[in-house]
Amino acid sequence: MSRIYNFSAGPAMLPEAVMDKAREEFINWRGTGMSVMEISHRSSDFVNHVMKPAEKNLRELMQVPENYKILFVTGGASSQFAMVPLNLLGNKKSADYFNTGIWSQKAINEAKRFCVVNIAASSEINGYTMIPSPEQWQLNPDSAYVHYTPNETINGVEFPMIPEIDNVPLVADMSSSILSQPIDVSRFGIIYAGAQKNMGPPGLAIVIIREDLIGYALSHTPTLYNYNTYAAHDSLYNTPNTFAIYMANLVFTWVKEQGGLKKMGQINQRKAQKLYELIDASNGFYRNNIERIARSRMNIVFYLPNDELQQLFLQQSHEAGLAYLKGHKTVGGIRASIYNAMPEEGVDALVSFMKDFMQKRG
Amino acid sequence: MSRIYNFSAGPAMLPEAVMDKAREEFINWRGTGMSVMEISHRSSDFVNHVMKPAEKNLRELMQVPENYKILFVTGGASSQFAMVPLNLLGNKKSADYFNTGIWSQKAINEAKRFCVVNIAASSEINGYTMIPSPEQWQLNPDSAYVHYTPNETINGVEFPMIPEIDNVPLVADMSSSILSQPIDVSRFGIIYAGAQKNMGPPGLAIVIIREDLIGYALSHTPTLYNYNTYAAHDSLYNTPNTFAIYMANLVFTWVKEQGGLKKMGQINQRKAQKLYELIDASNGFYRNNIERIARSRMNIVFYLPNDELQQLFLQQSHEAGLAYLKGHKTVGGIRASIYNAMPEEGVDALVSFMKDFMQKRG
Repeated sequence: MSRIYNFSAGPAMLPEAVMDKAREEFINWRGTGMSVMEISHRSSDFVNHVMKPAEKNLRELMQVPENYKILFVTGGASSQFAMVPLNLLGNKKSADYFNTGIWSQKAINEAKRFCVVNIAASSEINGYTMIPSPEQWQLNPDSAYVHYTPNETINGVEFPMIPEIDNVPLVADMSSSILSQPIDVSRFGIIYAGAQKNMGPPGLAIVIIREDLIGYALSHTPTLYNYNTYAAHDSLYNTPNTFAIYMANLVFTWVKEQGGLKKMGQINQRKAQKLYELIDASNGFYRNNIERIARSRMNIVFYLPNDELQQLFLQQSHEAGLAYLKGHKTVGGIRASIYNAMPEEGVDALVSFMKDFMQKRG
Repeated sequence: MSRIYNFSAGPAMLPEAVMDKAREEFINWRGTGMSVMEISHRSSDFVNHVMKPAEKNLRELMQVPENYKILFVTGGASSQFAMVPLNLLGNKKSADYFNTGIWSQKAINEAKRFCVVNIAASSEINGYTMIPSPEQWQLNPDSAYVHYTPNETINGVEFPMIPEIDNVPLVADMSSSILSQPIDVSRFGIIYAGAQKNMGPPGLAIVIIREDLIGYALSHTPTLYNYNTYAAHDSLYNTPNTFAIYMANLVFTWVKEQGGLKKMGQINQRKAQKLYELIDASNGFYRNNIERIARSRMNIVFYLPNDELQQLFLQQSHEAGLAYLKGHKTVGGIRASIYNAMPEEGVDALVSFMKDFMQKRG
């Protein structure tokens, strides 16, 4: 069978070179005669050849300042929706949230179980097709932190800037945009991300947290929901998702080999542009609803003139080796998720398929 | 290099046939052209070929009654230490715990953060070398549930029976004994187990819970710590640890192929017996401290006459392809963890090494 390009939004495709390497050493890792998933997380083999390099590689790639800890937390971003308020509220009663898509909403709903949520700005009334501009934001000076979702995977909308927030920590759910371009970590209190979009397989979240925010969890916080548990034990308080950390480290190494985040950012920009250019030049055959400046570089959501054509598009694209292009059920349409691991040739193949499809059906 | 036998306590070795199968389809799962870890947890491929079969196979293997749910929870047993009280306390203020080893202690310490813990019985004063007999137990009739650890991985001590508990749910941390022999699930309110000892790679816990116990989580329980979240969404509320579930299902299939739990129980009994017989026949050269009736079938802990001999034993056994035999730092000595995946030949190789070592150094 010919090469498959997998446009799944997450769990998503991983770099081919990473998969090949993992396969090669799957049953005999570094000549140990064992798989990396069969050994103790406390063994020197694992600590020195997976845990420490993973931390070091990510720190280098993202230029994480020294006063930030990198935590490897079992679970995904959805666990972080509770961990953030449980750890950051302290004696405050409220937190500010931007509501710019379905993932923002999920974070908000979970936070409401622990505090008063002040909606700093919302694009819900606009169908989540834009990012409210700063003059519309209503930040509450008494809030413990400000939370936002830089890229909304389902809606295909992305903040064109990092919000300027004074005095309180800025918290970002970067599940779908981490490692996709350079970012100034020092502007954040916490960056968290589920691994399964741009870093590795599911069941792992990365948390990058400013040290002074650690140690203030509410008293009823489960031990494994307390960031301090991870910070104080180098993420080895209990058995972590060792295989996912191993895979993430292979991905970090691969991103470095590609030229780091600056290079990834350029490639990702170009990949997205190719798709949006075709959409914009299609005379409405392909339609993207997102305000230009807020279009996602990672998840390109678009619609065809009617449902029949969309069904046909999905069917024929699948047959052409372009897999998992169906949009999320809440928004419908087509979604091409093009994280780091999607090679430019995959996007070219999709563009070419789209041109061809339009020519025949447009 | 010759075959390695890995005696790690967890993450532990997986069946060779399972590892070979996973390797074979690592980058092209079921002819999809993708890895199982690169596809959506909601895709029909994953649901029909991993999630449903995993549930079905485990239900068959353990003969789980229909009024029990099987949940796949991201995280390990340590998360369950908090989930159990958060979900079962209801309007009760206390829970009963057996303190029979270091893992019991950990469960107790976490439970104390949420309720009053009544110690039903403890062998701490005996250095965790026995299981208190039923006439010594002091159960509190007002407790919400009774928790115990059937097998203590670090101490190498195992309950010789399932405690007879009336009226309140019995909860068991079966991380190191699940699937090792047939068990009557109907005697339990909850059975939970981290996957990384007898089921698969780390980052996954299996929870088998009687349906009537679901739905009473305390109000401050994080959504992903609420069993109802998993029960109501077939463990797909958020992205689960898909790869670990896939691996666990391969293990379930393998256990069935071996003849099921009855057969596994016989093999495990025989494996443990071979080691204990040698220890008992060694005239004190090898020493096991556990009361005979409570000796673990899974983790055989023993000591040599002095530290130098222990060091030498560890070094030479490693060279002989018998890996990770070092005891846990809290108890020292040697520990041979011999879960389902350890073939009888591995135990034979260890026995033969031990005889030889004793002959030369005894």
